[in-house]
Amino acid sequence: MAGILYVVGIGPGEEAQMTPQADEAVRQSQVLAGYTVYVDLLRERYPDKEVLTTAMTQEEKRCRLAFECCAGGRSTAMVCSGDAGVYGMAGLILELAPEYPEVAVRVIPGVTAACAGAAVLGAPLMHDFAVISLSDRLTPMETIWKRLELAAEGDFVICLYNPSSKARGDYLSMACDRLLARCSGERICGIVRNIGRQGQEYRVMTLRELRDWKADMFTTVFVGNSQTRRIGDYMVTPRGYRHGQRG
Amino acid sequence: MAGILYVVGIGPGEEAQMTPQADEAVRQSQVLAGYTVYVDLLRERYPDKEVLTTAMTQEEKRCRLAFECCAGGRSTAMVCSGDAGVYGMAGLILELAPEYPEVAVRVIPGVTAACAGAAVLGAPLMHDFAVISLSDRLTPMETIWKRLELAAEGDFVICLYNPSSKARGDYLSMACDRLLARCSGERICGIVRNIGRQGQEYRVMTLRELRDWKADMFTTVFVGNSQTRRIGDYMVTPRGYRHGQRG
Repeated sequence: MAGILYVVGIGPGEEAQMTPQADEAVRQSQVLAGYTVYVDLLRERYPDKEVLTTAMTQEEKRCRLAFECCAGGRSTAMVCSGDAGVYGMAGLILELAPEYPEVAVRVIPGVTAACAGAAVLGAPLMHDFAVISLSDRLTPMETIWKRLELAAEGDFVICLYNPSSKARGDYLSMACDRLLARCSGERICGIVRNIGRQGQEYRVMTLRELRDWKADMFTTVFVGNSQTRRIGDYMVTPRGYRHGQRG
Repeated sequence: MAGILYVVGIGPGEEAQMTPQADEAVRQSQVLAGYTVYVDLLRERYPDKEVLTTAMTQEEKRCRLAFECCAGGRSTAMVCSGDAGVYGMAGLILELAPEYPEVAVRVIPGVTAACAGAAVLGAPLMHDFAVISLSDRLTPMETIWKRLELAAEGDFVICLYNPSSKARGDYLSMACDRLLARCSGERICGIVRNIGRQGQEYRVMTLRELRDWKADMFTTVFVGNSQTRRIGDYMVTPRGYRHGQRG
């Protein structure tokens, strides 16, 4: 009998932020699959698992190996940082699923970096928001910039995933330049690095300061909307409850 | 000594989707505060707590009572469905916090309905997405429509919170009419109702079908982007991994 393929959002990293449902899915699995960094976060916690890792760019190969483990009778947990569906592996797994009709797939959600990072910064996402990845590995850069500009025009709070990498060291600055053409340099922004992991750090700053911030691939970036304020150390987007105002 | 005020995202409802960190925050609290529906989800699980509920529209009163419990020495968990920051109470609590400097606030994130609902439908959020609430209680309707239209123009996947209520029975239809002016009627959409609770149901449908769907306040709505497809029973937005295509 074929095993079950679980696509599991493990949350930002620490055990306390992984749901019991996600924990149970990993426990039920014989094989732990995923990008090396995330699998390494879990190996100590689940020492009895067979481990299946591939490099970051070999997503399809990794997914097919996971399906083959399941087809061979071993349930497999394909683990994703944060949520399983937000820039995670759920989509590719379900695209491939019709080729492996004997394998049942279950997607287990998790706490995504937008929510986990927001909690560290305070409450930046209280109003309508847009989540945009700055990685152009799979998306044309012009699409990314267009979305960023439309999100600013709509006064969405914006959460940026993958703000930087070795090959894209200046993308966050380029994004900020586009935002600065539309928003005040005093717009409140925030960054969180290593959310829920050792070395977690955060900072609330202005859009002008964000432009020169050196983000790395472990950083999540938040750009407030026109109402977002700094309250003490926190980044807070009011929703309008307080004075009954509309908007 | 003052108690701690925890603002806790409990996830969509079932215990298996509440993080250990959220569970621990509730256990550490003497008082359980929140909107009645969410507190009722937790009363059985935490029977020894003092309960503080107010009606849905009395958010500020509820927050002030929670601060006063903490100021009086009792730690309090203000519970929110899904995440604490996505249309939750974290923002208002942090807006009021400077008035209660003796009370420490901690925001505990959770699995928001966008992620939990997406996992039920398959993988609709795999690409950049926008989260928009259709409630005009605190936001002018024209702001909501503008955001919806800009999100469609940017080809974002769109997740709609609060798609309907007794007073706003036709808002989802109105939203779909605006989307139909910009997107094909065949655009793939999905709804999930009672996510992670008894009576959970979901359905993948076209935008044209969504227009006439009777959503209620326990429904979360997903509108795919131009690439979103139906694969078997699932709603899937490809990210482009598979054939190395860009976009």
